[in-house]
Amino acid sequence: MISDKILLIVLDGGADRPLMIDGREETPLSSAKTENLDILAEEGISGMMDVLSPGIPPGSDTGHLSLLGYDPYKVYTGRGPIEAAGAGIDVKRGDVAFRCNFATLEDGKIIDRRAGRIRETEELAKAIDEEVHLDVDFIFKRSTGHRAALVFRGDGLGGDVTASDPKEDGMQIKESKALKKGSEKTAEILNDFVEQSIRVLSDHPVNEERAKKGLPRANAILTRGAGLLPEIERFEERYGLKGAVVAAAGLVIGISRICGLDFVFTEGATGGTDSNVNKKVENALRSLKNHDFVLMNIKGTDEAGHDRNFAKKSKFFERIDEAFERLLGLEDTMIAITADHTTSVAIGDHTGDPVPICIHGEGVRSDSINKFDEFNCASGGLGRIRGRDLMPILTDLTNRSKKFGA
Amino acid sequence: MISDKILLIVLDGGADRPLMIDGREETPLSSAKTENLDILAEEGISGMMDVLSPGIPPGSDTGHLSLLGYDPYKVYTGRGPIEAAGAGIDVKRGDVAFRCNFATLEDGKIIDRRAGRIRETEELAKAIDEEVHLDVDFIFKRSTGHRAALVFRGDGLGGDVTASDPKEDGMQIKESKALKKGSEKTAEILNDFVEQSIRVLSDHPVNEERAKKGLPRANAILTRGAGLLPEIERFEERYGLKGAVVAAAGLVIGISRICGLDFVFTEGATGGTDSNVNKKVENALRSLKNHDFVLMNIKGTDEAGHDRNFAKKSKFFERIDEAFERLLGLEDTMIAITADHTTSVAIGDHTGDPVPICIHGEGVRSDSINKFDEFNCASGGLGRIRGRDLMPILTDLTNRSKKFGA
Repeated sequence: MISDKILLIVLDGGADRPLMIDGREETPLSSAKTENLDILAEEGISGMMDVLSPGIPPGSDTGHLSLLGYDPYKVYTGRGPIEAAGAGIDVKRGDVAFRCNFATLEDGKIIDRRAGRIRETEELAKAIDEEVHLDVDFIFKRSTGHRAALVFRGDGLGGDVTASDPKEDGMQIKESKALKKGSEKTAEILNDFVEQSIRVLSDHPVNEERAKKGLPRANAILTRGAGLLPEIERFEERYGLKGAVVAAAGLVIGISRICGLDFVFTEGATGGTDSNVNKKVENALRSLKNHDFVLMNIKGTDEAGHDRNFAKKSKFFERIDEAFERLLGLEDTMIAITADHTTSVAIGDHTGDPVPICIHGEGVRSDSINKFDEFNCASGGLGRIRGRDLMPILTDLTNRSKKFGA
Repeated sequence: MISDKILLIVLDGGADRPLMIDGREETPLSSAKTENLDILAEEGISGMMDVLSPGIPPGSDTGHLSLLGYDPYKVYTGRGPIEAAGAGIDVKRGDVAFRCNFATLEDGKIIDRRAGRIRETEELAKAIDEEVHLDVDFIFKRSTGHRAALVFRGDGLGGDVTASDPKEDGMQIKESKALKKGSEKTAEILNDFVEQSIRVLSDHPVNEERAKKGLPRANAILTRGAGLLPEIERFEERYGLKGAVVAAAGLVIGISRICGLDFVFTEGATGGTDSNVNKKVENALRSLKNHDFVLMNIKGTDEAGHDRNFAKKSKFFERIDEAFERLLGLEDTMIAITADHTTSVAIGDHTGDPVPICIHGEGVRSDSINKFDEFNCASGGLGRIRGRDLMPILTDLTNRSKKFGA
């Protein structure tokens, strides 16, 4: 049976550097019992992949761009547009977008950049949307927790302005400035937005209520990550594949939406190690019925890495592996399992080490690898490939690629 | 003894994707008994090669360009000039060339694009050459079977024109149009050529004879693959190597001639699985006496792949292997054995999978590989390389490369 569909599974930050565990060098992945992943590795072809290039730690945004076959060095314009798309804003060509925080301002200084990790931001966001008036159209939308996204839409807007976010507590809000000619208008309007927001939020009933409870007010909006929407060829035009994304992380959803993938919501998908992985796999398989390509991102592995928690990361792999039992025997689908970057539990951050990859489906040249981890995949038949080559390889294996020449 | 000469052997379309044969995953190459190839692998260093880049299926033309060290994305201008050179036309800078078919025209429509696979085209071609008169110089030359090549030579000719070939039966001949400014004159003259050819061919005695026998007339010329001669640095200038090509396939001969290799004719070399491989090897070894570099292409493997014939392809490898016995112990020669692309018997066409490669000669770092096939070479000491890197590797191993830096 020909593998016609493509399922790309990204275990976010799933790769790691080894630590000595019981006298052996192990990573969270190598020490986990992952029977189903190992069967996929045994039947498929494995290797290592530099998602960007050797030694360069990718972000989840640039990493996913690369895995989807785009060159982030050409198309990445910062995190603002991605967060905005992830928050559900339909970002359009020419829009300038920003990542925002609700923050606490006192005596002219930011004393808490996250406003006590406020969650009830709905009323506050609504007030900003209704009571702030700018010289361009704008969309302000709350995201998870203290986060939000802001989009300016209009003529003559550039994306190169400095952040108003001082990026540490105890500092004043910064005046945004244009970094390049053509972004002056954006900086001016952004400063106006920040000022008006403070006026709208300061006496808002939600903040009065919080003050009564001794909670920090969410009386200022900090902005950062300004950028124009990247000019990205739509995924379907690029590959002739109708695609969907099954994910919980805003950044991954945002990138995928900007590329033109349909977002499929999963009940109980949290982006953490408590996520409902079974439901996600179920959703991915269902989405393959009316899509040619599904990107499934599982974020908890990255979270555990940032938490520097080896055991948590390792244990989560075992939960993932259980859910992957239903991937076995999936005959019509080319499955690729990999990570978007290494997240080292020793360091608590992304590193530039290559990530393991396994491709499983009809027509792949099986190798002798029978365990999916950073050590074994390094001897695999794929050798060492680049993130940007993955989509051409997968479209070729599903017999969609065009010959160059005769 | 120093390996001073280079013999590059291309088993055309020789790589494949595995099929289940007797409960094992095998390719035509892996299932063939290839004692001599395996000795070369055992003594040499092996690896996998992306002839263009991962997942991109090369044509035989772009594939060979890449193996000869040129970037086809920069120098490839379409198939016309390559076919013309392959047909023996001495194509020059500024020439525009076309691939042609003799075809059957009836009631204004092409009813057979190959004129009943006519072979006796000598007289017809001569008539065109003598009786067609154009505003530029032209060369029209028959090639194998119903094929021919056409070259325009003169000032102000561009290579970007549409085909006159409708590419399916039952359609009218298309009027050629310029795709870019500067190609208008080419389109105009091409349309004139097509019209005059019909007049010259329609009542030609060869066609009268065919009509009597109930065979389709070859009364029209279809053109496609228009292109200017690529601007290619001569092989000898590029590498300081006097080179020759031993091949039967027109496309390979054409590419090689354009690069400046001497063509060595081999009696009994057919481009098919019935080819006289012994004679080819003999010719290649003889050519090495007065050349530094010989490219030997064996086309039958590709033919068997396009025919979707696993057994035919596999068996032909065994015939090739027998002929390769005389490559053993060839001390003064660096031998590289590889393919220009994968041709999958399951699909019957080129795919973008990497191809195995083995380099054998004095000074190579032998590895543990002792079988030349797609599975074993994937663990070889060369790792995964690119087609364009092969010539620098071979010139380096023969101690010809120049240091960059001090």
